[in-house]
Amino acid sequence: MLTIALAKGSLLKDSIKLLQSIGLDFSAFLEPGCRQLQIIDPTGTAKALFVRNGDVPVYVEYGQAQLGIVGYDVIREKTPNVAQVLDLKFGGCRLSVAVKASSPYRSSLELPLQGRIATSFVHCSREYFDGLDLPVDIVPLHGSVELGPITGMSEAIVDLVATGNTLRENGLVEIDTLFYSTARLIAYPLSYRLNTYDLQTHVQRLSDVLTAQTP
Amino acid sequence: MLTIALAKGSLLKDSIKLLQSIGLDFSAFLEPGCRQLQIIDPTGTAKALFVRNGDVPVYVEYGQAQLGIVGYDVIREKTPNVAQVLDLKFGGCRLSVAVKASSPYRSSLELPLQGRIATSFVHCSREYFDGLDLPVDIVPLHGSVELGPITGMSEAIVDLVATGNTLRENGLVEIDTLFYSTARLIAYPLSYRLNTYDLQTHVQRLSDVLTAQTP
Repeated sequence: MLTIALAKGSLLKDSIKLLQSIGLDFSAFLEPGCRQLQIIDPTGTAKALFVRNGDVPVYVEYGQAQLGIVGYDVIREKTPNVAQVLDLKFGGCRLSVAVKASSPYRSSLELPLQGRIATSFVHCSREYFDGLDLPVDIVPLHGSVELGPITGMSEAIVDLVATGNTLRENGLVEIDTLFYSTARLIAYPLSYRLNTYDLQTHVQRLSDVLTAQTP
Repeated sequence: MLTIALAKGSLLKDSIKLLQSIGLDFSAFLEPGCRQLQIIDPTGTAKALFVRNGDVPVYVEYGQAQLGIVGYDVIREKTPNVAQVLDLKFGGCRLSVAVKASSPYRSSLELPLQGRIATSFVHCSREYFDGLDLPVDIVPLHGSVELGPITGMSEAIVDLVATGNTLRENGLVEIDTLFYSTARLIAYPLSYRLNTYDLQTHVQRLSDVLTAQTP
């Protein structure tokens, strides 16, 4: 059966809405208190796995899910061996460098040599600062990276920004952006090429829905 | 000021209770809806940072917190450069290998060559299976690792087990244990050696409380 890995969290609602538009209903995941990890849609066409954001490309890379919906930021950070087949347009955010508003730094290049950067995007940050030829010390954190500058552990953070509220609440300002991100439909390359479970038809139908939505 | 990194989640309540016993009160973290990331105790002696489990050793390794309370499992997985100063005895659990109850495997050595092991403890698992001289494919997942065997992606998981309820709910059984874990008090080695903020007195007082508790 066609299996689709869906990310818990901010992308879930839009992911489910999009799949409903091609007749696959996984809205049971949205019911409060739902503890299920996998659901088969009422027509028996496809199964959805309900996993952590960062785990979506793992299920697709190992072929356990033929399709997955995940943020471009995760793909950039983890560089999984998957096919990116559609830009789904929702879940817009950006990966940005931010510093304390009271700091003297107003662009990444002004950051001090060997300055510390707290981030959960270790790979993207390393690539970015290497590209600027600025030697920095990347401090890997998994949550509340804004504590880095607040406690004085790091001069800056690299983190996802959607509304900017978390930065504002913590007295931080964006000074540069690494890249913009949206949700992507990814596929297990072999299944896509062999058109397993009529995969390409499903992708085409999703593509048609997205085209119809574009003004 | 003496700074202590505390892990959100299952260790928090006992960590706060233990620190209260030596006169440091961070119970404000336990109030429902508390969004603060750091709190100074009412006597002004110490500050606590409220961070993810895996981030505790990072704050201590970088010397931003002189003390931290974190599970031994995190120390084993991340191998941070910190001093382990006390076994706090609470937060007991074990890192175990588990398989589907319906599978034929009853010990790690019975797992198939190149079998897949889903885990968020990639380093510990690699070390363990290398020690058994059993070549396996470690699949790195960050949440709901029990989906690995359920979906057929992996033959086994390596995960923390406390009560065993999650395993039972998902039809899994433990077949081997890598190690047992409890909460540990860790220190920034330089601060401990230099006795910054009278660190050693605080550690001694915690040690006395633990000794008094031992029957």
